[in-house]
Amino acid sequence: MKTAQSTILGVLGGGQLGRMLIQSAINYNQDIHILDPDPNAPCKDLAQKFSVGSLKDFDTVYAFGQNCDVITVEIESVNTDALAKLESEGKQVYPQPHILKLIQDKREQKQFYQQHDIPTADFILTDTKQDVVANQGFLPAVNKLGKEGYDGRGVQILRGTDDLEKAFEAPSLLEKLIDFDKEIAVTVARNKEGELIAYPAVECAFHPTANLVEFLFAPAEITPEVEAKAQEIAKDVILKLDMVGILAVEMFVTKDGNVLVNEIAPRPHNSGHHTIEANFTSQFEQHLRSVMNWPLGNPDLRCPAAMINLLGEDGYTGEAYVEGKEEAMQEKGVYIHLYGKKLTKPFRKMGHVTLLDENVDQLKERANRIKDLIKIKSYS
Amino acid sequence: MKTAQSTILGVLGGGQLGRMLIQSAINYNQDIHILDPDPNAPCKDLAQKFSVGSLKDFDTVYAFGQNCDVITVEIESVNTDALAKLESEGKQVYPQPHILKLIQDKREQKQFYQQHDIPTADFILTDTKQDVVANQGFLPAVNKLGKEGYDGRGVQILRGTDDLEKAFEAPSLLEKLIDFDKEIAVTVARNKEGELIAYPAVECAFHPTANLVEFLFAPAEITPEVEAKAQEIAKDVILKLDMVGILAVEMFVTKDGNVLVNEIAPRPHNSGHHTIEANFTSQFEQHLRSVMNWPLGNPDLRCPAAMINLLGEDGYTGEAYVEGKEEAMQEKGVYIHLYGKKLTKPFRKMGHVTLLDENVDQLKERANRIKDLIKIKSYS
Repeated sequence: MKTAQSTILGVLGGGQLGRMLIQSAINYNQDIHILDPDPNAPCKDLAQKFSVGSLKDFDTVYAFGQNCDVITVEIESVNTDALAKLESEGKQVYPQPHILKLIQDKREQKQFYQQHDIPTADFILTDTKQDVVANQGFLPAVNKLGKEGYDGRGVQILRGTDDLEKAFEAPSLLEKLIDFDKEIAVTVARNKEGELIAYPAVECAFHPTANLVEFLFAPAEITPEVEAKAQEIAKDVILKLDMVGILAVEMFVTKDGNVLVNEIAPRPHNSGHHTIEANFTSQFEQHLRSVMNWPLGNPDLRCPAAMINLLGEDGYTGEAYVEGKEEAMQEKGVYIHLYGKKLTKPFRKMGHVTLLDENVDQLKERANRIKDLIKIKSYS
Repeated sequence: MKTAQSTILGVLGGGQLGRMLIQSAINYNQDIHILDPDPNAPCKDLAQKFSVGSLKDFDTVYAFGQNCDVITVEIESVNTDALAKLESEGKQVYPQPHILKLIQDKREQKQFYQQHDIPTADFILTDTKQDVVANQGFLPAVNKLGKEGYDGRGVQILRGTDDLEKAFEAPSLLEKLIDFDKEIAVTVARNKEGELIAYPAVECAFHPTANLVEFLFAPAEITPEVEAKAQEIAKDVILKLDMVGILAVEMFVTKDGNVLVNEIAPRPHNSGHHTIEANFTSQFEQHLRSVMNWPLGNPDLRCPAAMINLLGEDGYTGEAYVEGKEEAMQEKGVYIHLYGKKLTKPFRKMGHVTLLDENVDQLKERANRIKDLIKIKSYS
């Protein structure tokens, strides 16, 4: 007899997001199979089955999925044709393959917002550098590659005509540069039953050069009106996508209180790492609940929190060590999460720290101090 | 070059305590090797290395330990001679083998308390049933086997002469039955540096027949004086043992406010499971910190909590399923932990639930309801 316990969840990608998903899945006896191209991926040793193979190869993904009951992702750039075939053959695939396909192309993503009245920055589609030059009146703007951009790659700001030279010579977006007050994110989750929850908004502070989240604060310091608007928009996006799973919706709050969708990620996201300790239900458990069609968990914040990404320090490449770890571990409410990566390189995501503090001012002061304290360096 | 990350922690025992230890160790990139006699033990699939073998066999334990840098346990009944040899050869073994040896024998444990002025119930050592009969004036008393008692086995109450017949025919203890007001537990931890922390006391409610903790409430409802006394006693025990690691100290609070040590466990313990969600540092992370000689973590309670053991329902044996799980998952602050055991049998520890609620009265009401809601049954 087939039992609930023997349902296998396949995950495309075995990085840190898969790793933290496994930490949650252990509590539910949920067996997990992982596919990742890297034999030393963070999920190695922790899954019921760990397979090495390309996430972009049709046959590899299709064969992997055939041994699973439910299939999900921890990265968007996967072979969606194989997922669509698995879905058509009766596998549960969440987020649905057509949503992954949409999200793989930032141009389609933006057009989706436009067609569905989701507020977002104005944009122009460009195919060549010449297209960008022809639209230079649109500057200052953000130039984004349609495909393959990730973690700050494939995104650049064109402030004026001097920057035109670096415009992408490929299908891209030219997006009006928003003079925003804050960048926030709201995570929403939805299961097959249609149950829908939204996490409180968080506030992101980006690294000035690497275009990666450097700090995150929860809750966001925004008015109740902006909070309500952001939650409504995030729910609206997942509903209009008709998506099952977890979705991080990154938004700009403009100086006049408007909320505009920037980008979305249909998986656990860097902007939700603090939820492990700070919220009643972590985003990883919520991901599991949503794709397995279990009841969703309460998303409320238990305590104000800051999240600090531990990026490989610039100038260090090689076997990693964590400077300042022991000092940080002595502090109350400091949670270090390392991602099991042996080798560091500049700006590689090596881990994160969550910090809890009921006093929001003290939280910010401590976050800055801990960011300066913990550094990922290399031995050699 | 040898690095901090490549230090291997060997754990004797791969049950639920090892499983929850691994969940914590993942955050620190701490590699763990597990030894367990059961090829389907809860830690299977989750450790960097999982070896099947007897914990009581000298050669097996010795060979296992040689590939580790630090060795710890999640169960007391292990071969301490092999551990002593490993220790003498320079391995870090925590808790120290001589402490494990002491704790394997409840008679030695009691004598240790007596010799070190640790308050405990009066007792008599008995070797035969006849010894018990000769001391029947000591009844009502608890008759405990010196060795091999575990999870309620090897412990029985002798209320009067009618019970003498069942007295143990083996080296045992006869302990004065304490007419206690409450049973509480304090977990303490100590690292090699000598750093020492104590968790707030928790209150245990036992299953009337199985002699297993049925409910646990944190904080214990005791006076500040009793709380202080209990913490002092628990610290005193770990100091007098000169132990490194984590130690659960179970105590009776008598009706006149005395605190007596009942039993101790030199490892993560059932009375500390709530710390995963309810305290700043979980007992599993604290175990890791203490044996690895890392700085200890803050033990404070973040929120009042109840812990409910999920024991195999009486009358059910076979492939397990969890009745009422989905209903419980809908509640805010309910955390289900399943231990990865495929087969259930009456009173087998299959999992636990932690419940968080700021309102202590509501917490108790909800704990009772959830206990009635979730049942571990079998398909067949």
